[in-house]
Amino acid sequence: MWSPEMQARGSVGTQLLLLLVLGAAESAPGAQRRYTPDWPSLDSRPLPDWFDKAKFGVFVHWGVFSVPAWGSEWFWWHWKGEGLPQYQRFMSDNYPPGFSYADFAPQFTARFFDPDTWADLFQAAGAKYVVLTTKHHEGFTNWPSPVSWNWNSKDVGPHRDLVGELETAIRKRNIRYGLYHSLFEWFHPLYQLDKKNGFRTQYFVAGKTMPELYDLVNRYKPDLIWSDGDWESPDTYWNSTDFLSWLYSDSPVKDEVVVNDRWGFNCSCHHGGYYNCEDKFQPSSLPHHKWEMCTSIDKRSWGYRRTMSISDVADESEIIAELVQTVSLGGNYLLNIGPTKDGLIVPIFQERLLAVGKWLSISGEAIYASQPWRVQLEKNESVWYTSKGSAVYAIFLNWPENGELSLKSPKTTSTTQVMMLGIQKDLEWSTDPHGGLLIYLPQIPPSALPVEFAWTIKMTGVE
Amino acid sequence: MWSPEMQARGSVGTQLLLLLVLGAAESAPGAQRRYTPDWPSLDSRPLPDWFDKAKFGVFVHWGVFSVPAWGSEWFWWHWKGEGLPQYQRFMSDNYPPGFSYADFAPQFTARFFDPDTWADLFQAAGAKYVVLTTKHHEGFTNWPSPVSWNWNSKDVGPHRDLVGELETAIRKRNIRYGLYHSLFEWFHPLYQLDKKNGFRTQYFVAGKTMPELYDLVNRYKPDLIWSDGDWESPDTYWNSTDFLSWLYSDSPVKDEVVVNDRWGFNCSCHHGGYYNCEDKFQPSSLPHHKWEMCTSIDKRSWGYRRTMSISDVADESEIIAELVQTVSLGGNYLLNIGPTKDGLIVPIFQERLLAVGKWLSISGEAIYASQPWRVQLEKNESVWYTSKGSAVYAIFLNWPENGELSLKSPKTTSTTQVMMLGIQKDLEWSTDPHGGLLIYLPQIPPSALPVEFAWTIKMTGVE
Amino acid sequence: MWSPEMQARGSVGTQLLLLLVLGAAESAPGAQRRYTPDWPSLDSRPLPDWFDKAKFGVFVHWGVFSVPAWGSEWFWWHWKGEGLPQYQRFMSDNYPPGFSYADFAPQFTARFFDPDTWADLFQAAGAKYVVLTTKHHEGFTNWPSPVSWNWNSKDVGPHRDLVGELETAIRKRNIRYGLYHSLFEWFHPLYQLDKKNGFRTQYFVAGKTMPELYDLVNRYKPDLIWSDGDWESPDTYWNSTDFLSWLYSDSPVKDEVVVNDRWGFNCSCHHGGYYNCEDKFQPSSLPHHKWEMCTSIDKRSWGYRRTMSISDVADESEIIAELVQTVSLGGNYLLNIGPTKDGLIVPIFQERLLAVGKWLSISGEAIYASQPWRVQLEKNESVWYTSKGSAVYAIFLNWPENGELSLKSPKTTSTTQVMMLGIQKDLEWSTDPHGGLLIYLPQIPPSALPVEFAWTIKMTGVE
Amino acid sequence: MWSPEMQARGSVGTQLLLLLVLGAAESAPGAQRRYTPDWPSLDSRPLPDWFDKAKFGVFVHWGVFSVPAWGSEWFWWHWKGEGLPQYQRFMSDNYPPGFSYADFAPQFTARFFDPDTWADLFQAAGAKYVVLTTKHHEGFTNWPSPVSWNWNSKDVGPHRDLVGELETAIRKRNIRYGLYHSLFEWFHPLYQLDKKNGFRTQYFVAGKTMPELYDLVNRYKPDLIWSDGDWESPDTYWNSTDFLSWLYSDSPVKDEVVVNDRWGFNCSCHHGGYYNCEDKFQPSSLPHHKWEMCTSIDKRSWGYRRTMSISDVADESEIIAELVQTVSLGGNYLLNIGPTKDGLIVPIFQERLLAVGKWLSISGEAIYASQPWRVQLEKNESVWYTSKGSAVYAIFLNWPENGELSLKSPKTTSTTQVMMLGIQKDLEWSTDPHGGLLIYLPQIPPSALPVEFAWTIKMTGVE
Repeated sequence: MWSPEMQARGSVGTQLLLLLVLGAAESAPGAQRRYTPDWPSLDSRPLPDWFDKAKFGVFVHWGVFSVPAWGSEWFWWHWKGEGLPQYQRFMSDNYPPGFSYADFAPQFTARFFDPDTWADLFQAAGAKYVVLTTKHHEGFTNWPSPVSWNWNSKDVGPHRDLVGELETAIRKRNIRYGLYHSLFEWFHPLYQLDKKNGFRTQYFVAGKTMPELYDLVNRYKPDLIWSDGDWESPDTYWNSTDFLSWLYSDSPVKDEVVVNDRWGFNCSCHHGGYYNCEDKFQPSSLPHHKWEMCTSIDKRSWGYRRTMSISDVADESEIIAELVQTVSLGGNYLLNIGPTKDGLIVPIFQERLLAVGKWLSISGEAIYASQPWRVQLEKNESVWYTSKGSAVYAIFLNWPENGELSLKSPKTTSTTQVMMLGIQKDLEWSTDPHGGLLIYLPQIPPSALPVEFAWTIKMTGVE
Repeated sequence: MWSPEMQARGSVGTQLLLLLVLGAAESAPGAQRRYTPDWPSLDSRPLPDWFDKAKFGVFVHWGVFSVPAWGSEWFWWHWKGEGLPQYQRFMSDNYPPGFSYADFAPQFTARFFDPDTWADLFQAAGAKYVVLTTKHHEGFTNWPSPVSWNWNSKDVGPHRDLVGELETAIRKRNIRYGLYHSLFEWFHPLYQLDKKNGFRTQYFVAGKTMPELYDLVNRYKPDLIWSDGDWESPDTYWNSTDFLSWLYSDSPVKDEVVVNDRWGFNCSCHHGGYYNCEDKFQPSSLPHHKWEMCTSIDKRSWGYRRTMSISDVADESEIIAELVQTVSLGGNYLLNIGPTKDGLIVPIFQERLLAVGKWLSISGEAIYASQPWRVQLEKNESVWYTSKGSAVYAIFLNWPENGELSLKSPKTTSTTQVMMLGIQKDLEWSTDPHGGLLIYLPQIPPSALPVEFAWTIKMTGVE
Repeated sequence: MWSPEMQARGSVGTQLLLLLVLGAAESAPGAQRRYTPDWPSLDSRPLPDWFDKAKFGVFVHWGVFSVPAWGSEWFWWHWKGEGLPQYQRFMSDNYPPGFSYADFAPQFTARFFDPDTWADLFQAAGAKYVVLTTKHHEGFTNWPSPVSWNWNSKDVGPHRDLVGELETAIRKRNIRYGLYHSLFEWFHPLYQLDKKNGFRTQYFVAGKTMPELYDLVNRYKPDLIWSDGDWESPDTYWNSTDFLSWLYSDSPVKDEVVVNDRWGFNCSCHHGGYYNCEDKFQPSSLPHHKWEMCTSIDKRSWGYRRTMSISDVADESEIIAELVQTVSLGGNYLLNIGPTKDGLIVPIFQERLLAVGKWLSISGEAIYASQPWRVQLEKNESVWYTSKGSAVYAIFLNWPENGELSLKSPKTTSTTQVMMLGIQKDLEWSTDPHGGLLIYLPQIPPSALPVEFAWTIKMTGVE
Repeated sequence: MWSPEMQARGSVGTQLLLLLVLGAAESAPGAQRRYTPDWPSLDSRPLPDWFDKAKFGVFVHWGVFSVPAWGSEWFWWHWKGEGLPQYQRFMSDNYPPGFSYADFAPQFTARFFDPDTWADLFQAAGAKYVVLTTKHHEGFTNWPSPVSWNWNSKDVGPHRDLVGELETAIRKRNIRYGLYHSLFEWFHPLYQLDKKNGFRTQYFVAGKTMPELYDLVNRYKPDLIWSDGDWESPDTYWNSTDFLSWLYSDSPVKDEVVVNDRWGFNCSCHHGGYYNCEDKFQPSSLPHHKWEMCTSIDKRSWGYRRTMSISDVADESEIIAELVQTVSLGGNYLLNIGPTKDGLIVPIFQERLLAVGKWLSISGEAIYASQPWRVQLEKNESVWYTSKGSAVYAIFLNWPENGELSLKSPKTTSTTQVMMLGIQKDLEWSTDPHGGLLIYLPQIPPSALPVEFAWTIKMTGVE
């Protein structure tokens, strides 16, 4: 039945899809502006305001990969797709012959998953948005998808709607809710068929991807769609522009939704909403397009790993330095944690997130809703600038040995005032004969410092 | 997304399906006769010869229901569909809270499944065809269906192609191979959607039922398709006539394949190939259409039940009496056993099947390739007739107290000869003054009887 | 610590044991006759009357071995003691690396174990006593033994007192209750230590065997102790005579209890209560000592095997022929079944047991409370004799072709009367000129025969 | 059998035990000094030198309780002993009915347990000794105890000798190895019997406790025995003095072994080796006897808890403050972590241990092999003293706001020198007119400080 002659029939799949979608489309209120399914139109849409202001979000990778919790969330692929020896040995050492990846699913219990506890933590971390994997490349859906029967979190494993439960908790705290969604699935037989057909058929897109994307939007009304898994085939295979034109023109979230840039081979860094470009992307100078840097506290995995060692964990100062650099360069910072199969966020992740929150409670003024300044990085120094209104913020990562911070870029004026966030009184400073100003940092014991690293100088009346 | 407005769009699903099918269709050799997708045409097809000659087959119910192995193969429905208290109690007594039906699947190991051992047994039982559940109402496919990802015997549980392995073993022994297939699936979300839509949509048919039926035919080239689960919706919903016209006209098995009559609400006993009418159907007089009586050795279940007691098991004489009656009335007899989750056929089922085989080894002459005689049942007596060529067979279930068997219906002639199958020499007989003849049964010790019950008299030269 | 120098210290263990026992001993009512701990005294005890009268019992092998249910109840030994390749393969094919025998125990659920259902079956089988394995060589106790912590049916697996629950059900039906008990345990570390010490130490006997035997007697007051596992060491190691002198003189069951002969290397067939000699023992002529033949319906195992095939199962006529022969030769017949880990007796065993019961319902008169006659077996014929009072019973296994049964041994008298059990009227007979008598069997259809095999002639007035 | 009349028979158990022990005893080399089994003699033994010098050890609680990993290591008792509702609910919510504590054991896999990784961590933490639970109150032994068959880490769960594997790794790094051992076991049937008998019988001591203690000593030759679980019965029940006299006089570790004080009701804080008194004991002034403070990084449990939150975890400054206080008051500090059932030490525990190690790498001079000074705590200040040779160390927990540290207790002399550990050059200071001295702390940026908290002043030439 599944023969290569089926080419050029993708349009039927698309047709089916469109019909499936109409119901919801019809119920959407009249949209003022409409977008056509092509990149020029879609790329012309302004990015909803909230995203740039948010600056800091938490990313959550959770799925069946949290059960073996070994290697990374790419466990299945490394084991069965690539056949890496260490993965094969891991399986033969620990499981009976014939044990399959699907056999892990019943152990994904989410036993202790309390969405409010998670949401409290994310709030305390200062996150303004949270992005959850609704479905990773393994194809297991964390919500009761009608086209993923018996391979979703309601039918097996947690027996709960994880996406929905977290949504409720997140929204209660006025945090924005984003949904990670992988377009492709390594081992879905229909995807494999399309791939074998050179992506000239779209059985998978019609039967799985699109129904699920529409379902996600209609059910959970996300503020953000974090698309992934697009790279093996072009956006025309994925019908991405169709989806986005619906999303922007007719969907229930058309006014507020934000998306990223992974919508097909060659799209990333060129089309879509904001840009992720590659994972852990860090530009060296200010990009022209809004972007987001996503990274993970566990440097070696996005999903939870039982064998994670403290040496794999980013420490607090690294994380904050990265956050500062990212915001200074106009990006958002999306910091990932991988919960356990039990639904717990282990203490080391709690500690890191709370450290960010503690730092933001003092330094958030320089971060949230800030904008890049005319200079981002003080030359030869680890001092990063941001700005908001008339204020300029200089965040310095190293405390100078002599207690004097030299800033070359700001030009002082008669109204210049200098303070440190977290300290009441103004700091003394002088004009630097070589340009800029010299700031005399307060002489206080370590425990009296407002933060432990990445101290922020706030200047007004500078140019 | 899933709104009731989707009505009248079923045609797209159908279109998709047809396209899926073309590949195989094109490779089919030019068919001499073609059938159109309507009952008058389909019903006009002559039933391939082999089926009526076969008379006796073995039915095999195997699936995830073999894991709880309690109640019946309708376990899931009784538990979750109807919510019967005893099923809910069984679960809460034995499994952790939240345990779902899908959680049973990993325990469906088929650990000891040896298809050749099964096939040897079926052959020793005298079966001329074997029908296996490829997919019961639970939707779990016993082969690697590409549209039943992670809910099939290759991805979870056995991790084997059960349908394919049995096929190979069965064909080696020149037994015909039939595939049971349930059209509906209790809990498939697309089926539930179509149902909610009053069956005006066909998402389930397009995405699951038809792809699987075509796949089964193309992969395993079955001699028989035993359709089931049709009763909730009309054949137009199921696209049955489309499928059958392809099956009869273009499929690789178009010349030999036999189907039954469960192709939609109101079809049963009216359309299709041979008729099953209802389960365990027993007509009281000779039907006008070829039919089959299916029944189960475990009187209370088709699937294996761990708690099956000997009192639930049909005994050998009951089974053989039923076989005799069925064949006498022109039917085929399809006798069911349910293997264990380990892939074993328990000894009591072996014993029963072998008893049938032993009886057929003597009496098969009166069964295989026989035809109904002008009379089926001797009035007021448990004597059943069959015929073949010039021979008439009278199978009597009770040995007369006085050793004289009275048959009213046969008319003796000058060439009349009477013998008992399994005994060398002719029997003595006399014309009965009241009509028919009186046969003097041999006076032999019990252990010398050719069979233990249902002895067969063969007469030639009678009318 | 565990050094070979510990020899000759067994007496301390014994001392400990005796002290443990005193409590119960003191509460035993004054015994009339006392037995000393030596074989001449113990062997002089008359066997309580009930045992010889009982004739037929059911043996039950149940334990952790019922979980793998593969090979036989010696699974652990074949796997780990002998390292047989097929057992090692079975494990590596089906279980994760490192899976141990103890890991089977949690799966011994006894989920469906209903002692009353079992007892009803045993009663319907005509059993006058039932013997359950309280502990096989694996050491797992089917009751909450205080010296087998976490390796007993209360702490793991069933979480029930299997020995106690069956006791209650059996006693309600006035069936005698026997306890199988293995003296040795293959892998108990204290047994292995004693063995390494050449059985000059008795740590195992003091700490495990004897506490458990006394506990069994005091708790369940068994009618029979079926000792086993004695062969690797002498009775002096086992302290068997001490135990038996207490059992016969002071225990709560001293008047009624019966034991067998497995109490140490060289004891079997020489000392103890009745004799089992070897498993499935069948003497060729009448023994001088009361004996018992134990055998299993599954010819290849005592414990349940999932892979048991019908060809491994003794058929009904074999079983009844063996019962007849055993009773004729003065023995008791103990027929074994192995329940499943779920606590079920599979239908094929039910069928066999009920067949015995059905036969005994007609022929029991010649079996229960019978005594051997002066002749046991009619020469060159399969006719076995028993007697009771003035009646002599001839049980013939083959129905003579000509309907005339020739018995050479009985001497007819003027009062000789002959009948067949299950048939109302007397049979005709004549004196055989060559000695004995010639009996004219009734000419009746097969279905009218009282039993299907092993018909019993009852004679009175013969010598 | 198990009757209360068994009183006064304990001596037999003891006898058995002594005999068991002789073998090892005989192989011990001639001891110079011998100790008799009474407290005056035992208490007179000098504490081996290494222990007081060690100061800092790591405690490891690992067992079957690491499987539920919920509540605490007292899980079983809270659930089944006390029947606390939240434990019962936890079980009924997550496990099938009838699931027992023993059923957890197979999941105690120790899959990732690498003893060298642990030992590396403990070494990096600066620990001079490590104490592992060989057996907690649950009775499960982490080594193949011959009297704990099928309830030990070799027969079930890890299938490894955990105590032995860790021993090898620890000794390779010249760290001392201590064995935690619980005298009592909540649910051992022999213990329960003795308890019911008012501890006048000693079945449990003779059959379980003492054989295991001797076995542990002879097998693993521990440097320390950390006894626990003594409080329900007197030392005469436990035969503690017998054991200790053997341990001190004849055992293979008689010269180096150290024990604590939990050897029977009323022993703690009065007899034995060093004193633990109660858990987390903190005296307010310098005790007269060597002591040890044991505490746990997880403030709410000694065993691993999956639900441990960061708020339950002692932070680095708390831990170090406690270590400083303990050593200043003459104690050792034993800091506990609970590994997972997989054999992993989670990152948060790694982080805390490494923080201690990092601090000790600078400040260890003031800790290891130090002795209490004549003053322990500077009045009204959080400054703790230790001493070594002519040096006096003042460890201050709070950095004074004005950068001047005032110490009242030291008396300066003409040779007085003051420095800070981790900083090269001497500090300036002046005599305080109100007594003691005033130290001018260095003015350096936070990142240049040698440690983050608990800075150490080293003084020489003070009195």
